[in-house]
This record gives sequence, C-alpha cells and structure tokens, in this order.
Amino acid sequence: MRPYARPLARLIEELERMPGIGPKSAQRLAYYLIEAPSEDVMSLTDAILRAKQDLKWCQTCFNLAEADDCPVCADPARDRATICVVAEPRDLIAMENTGEYRGVYHVLGGVISPLDDIGPDELHIKELFQRVQNGDVHEVILATNPVVEGDATALYLAKLLKPLGPKVTRIALGLPVGGDLDYADQVTIARALAGRTEM
Amino acid sequence: MRPYARPLARLIEELERMPGIGPKSAQRLAYYLIEAPSEDVMSLTDAILRAKQDLKWCQTCFNLAEADDCPVCADPARDRATICVVAEPRDLIAMENTGEYRGVYHVLGGVISPLDDIGPDELHIKELFQRVQNGDVHEVILATNPVVEGDATALYLAKLLKPLGPKVTRIALGLPVGGDLDYADQVTIARALAGRTEM
Repeated sequence: MRPYARPLARLIEELERMPGIGPKSAQRLAYYLIEAPSEDVMSLTDAILRAKQDLKWCQTCFNLAEADDCPVCADPARDRATICVVAEPRDLIAMENTGEYRGVYHVLGGVISPLDDIGPDELHIKELFQRVQNGDVHEVILATNPVVEGDATALYLAKLLKPLGPKVTRIALGLPVGGDLDYADQVTIARALAGRTEM
Repeated sequence: MRPYARPLARLIEELERMPGIGPKSAQRLAYYLIEAPSEDVMSLTDAILRAKQDLKWCQTCFNLAEADDCPVCADPARDRATICVVAEPRDLIAMENTGEYRGVYHVLGGVISPLDDIGPDELHIKELFQRVQNGDVHEVILATNPVVEGDATALYLAKLLKPLGPKVTRIALGLPVGGDLDYADQVTIARALAGRTEM
C-alpha cells in the first residue's frame, strides 16, 4: 500500500529527477507546490515552458539569448576585440558577476572529452576561429575550468589560435582569495608558485 | 546590463521562490530544464498542474487524496479503532514509512499556535471529536512533533478526548536510535529518563 495519493507520488517522482533534488527535497517541494496559491504555481510552470520555448543560442557567441544576439553581444559598450572563451553559459554568468570584464564571450558548449565522445567538432570551435579570422580580435582569454578536460581544451585552442594572430591568455591558477596555504592542495600551491608575479 | 536573457532570468526568479532553493540551485535547475528534452519538461509541468488540480483532502482524515478517501482510509485492512493524530500530511507519510502502524490517521492541518493566530477552530479538531464520538475508537495516539506547539496541542487534545472514552497516548520521547548520550541535549535525556521502561 502506497500512502501517497497518485498525483502527489507522480509529482514527487518528477521533481526527484532534477539535479540536486533528493527524495526529501522533492517531497518538500511537492507539498509547497500543492499548498501554494494557484497563480504562483501557474507562474512557475509558465516560466518553465516559456524559457524552454523562447530561449535560443546567440548567433555570435552561443550564450542563451532571447533574440538573435545575447544581452552581451547586443550591448554596444562591450569591447569586441577581446573574446573570453568559456565552456558553458553558466560560466559566462559567473564571469559577468565579477563586473570586471568588458569584452565579449564565446561559449563552447562543453569541453573536449574523449571519454564522453566529445571532440572539437561537437563544440563551437569552428565558429570561434571564424570570429578570430574575420574580426579585429586582439586577445582571446581561455577561461575553461582548471580541470583535466578544461586544461586540455585550452591547450588545444591556444595551439590553433596563436598562428591566427591574437594574444592568447589563460586565466590565472592559484590560491583562492581568503584561502589558506595549509589547507590548499599541492597542485594548487605548485601552480600558485609557478604563476607568481612581481610586486 | 543583465547577462541573463529575460526568460532565463524569470525562470531563475520563479525557481528561487521555492523553499530550500537558493540562487545557485535555482540557476542549476534552470539550466537543467532548458537543456532537458521537451517531453521531460512537459511531464514535470504537467505533474505540477495535475497535482494542484486533482488533489483534495480526504473527507475522513484530511490526508491528501485523489478520491473522496485517501489511500489509507480506503484500505479495508486498516484498523479503524486506532487513530493516529498528526499535524501535516508529510508526518503521516513519515509514520507510514515505518511500516509499523496499521491503524488510521487524522491530519490536523497544523498545530495550535497563538503567535501565528492558529487556534483550535483553524484545525480539523471538531472532525476528530466527531470521529471519536461516532465510531468505535479504542485509542487515539497523539503524534504531533515534540516542540512547544506540538506538545501544547497534544495536551489540549488529550484533555478533551479522554472524557469521550478512548485511551489517549503520546508517542515516546527519548534518545533517537543510534544516538549518543554525550551529544544529546539535557531535555531529551531528562525525557528519556522519565519515560524509562522495565526490561
């Protein structure tokens, strides 16, 4: 005998399929949704379906966009001579949140990962080359995550982009701000040491 | 300049309103939903709307139900002479998950809490009395949470139910299984001591 009424059981099951949502959170969310005002719930489901329907990929940088151009590419104040290459749209957001970067982006849509059958052709690398070849690009900043696949992808891109002319840089690796030498792993400390700058 | 496309920003905002979902989880869920197959997303929104539409309160015990009776009340094998009183439908589920209880339930829909303006009239207490008065009820088990409001509600119910005839009991308070005397709070240990049973 299952104690859940069927629509409740189905809702919990559906919620549990989302990342980071375990059985307990799914149950909590389900009860919240059942008890929430109908307008709020309609507004949520509408937002989900609309996002699904209205979002597309920016034709230039492959960020998520509502129109042909994403908010960054559509902004005339951005410096188009600097391209920051990231793996996913969420990485672009993390970079934007610093408020420090005024250039434009290129979202690869992943990183090269032979184990997952993702090679250069599965990513927006061809389009990046076209942008660098066609435009007046002074610098390409490689900002893939500092993990094996991200590093490999950055290396691959650097090798192919440099002959085209632009300065190719990689974001710095080192201790995070507020970090503690005593708690940092050896590889991070080694990278921080190798990347030391003169004061 | 906001880096999010508008439908994405709205989706993240809507997801963030749910309990236990912070900005980071909301962003993660939003990207998941945008990238998930359309059928999966439709299935989720459909489950939400259907749960909202099809669920009602069991006419007997006020558990969530699809029909007039909830799965527990509809089960002919349950012992109707024992009623376990809980505050919320999720407490009923927790009790059911033990697999140890064969009686029926009564869901109060909350606990008495003067600070939140919830008095006995806001809860399904009248209906509980009717069940006890009309039916052949041998025992009422008070299983509200062992916090101030839950204890007060249990006390209030016990005082009014006892004169009607049934045995009125309260779930045991003591150390949780696997617990450690050294880490338990003083009130819990005091309750465990007071509630000691002969071996």
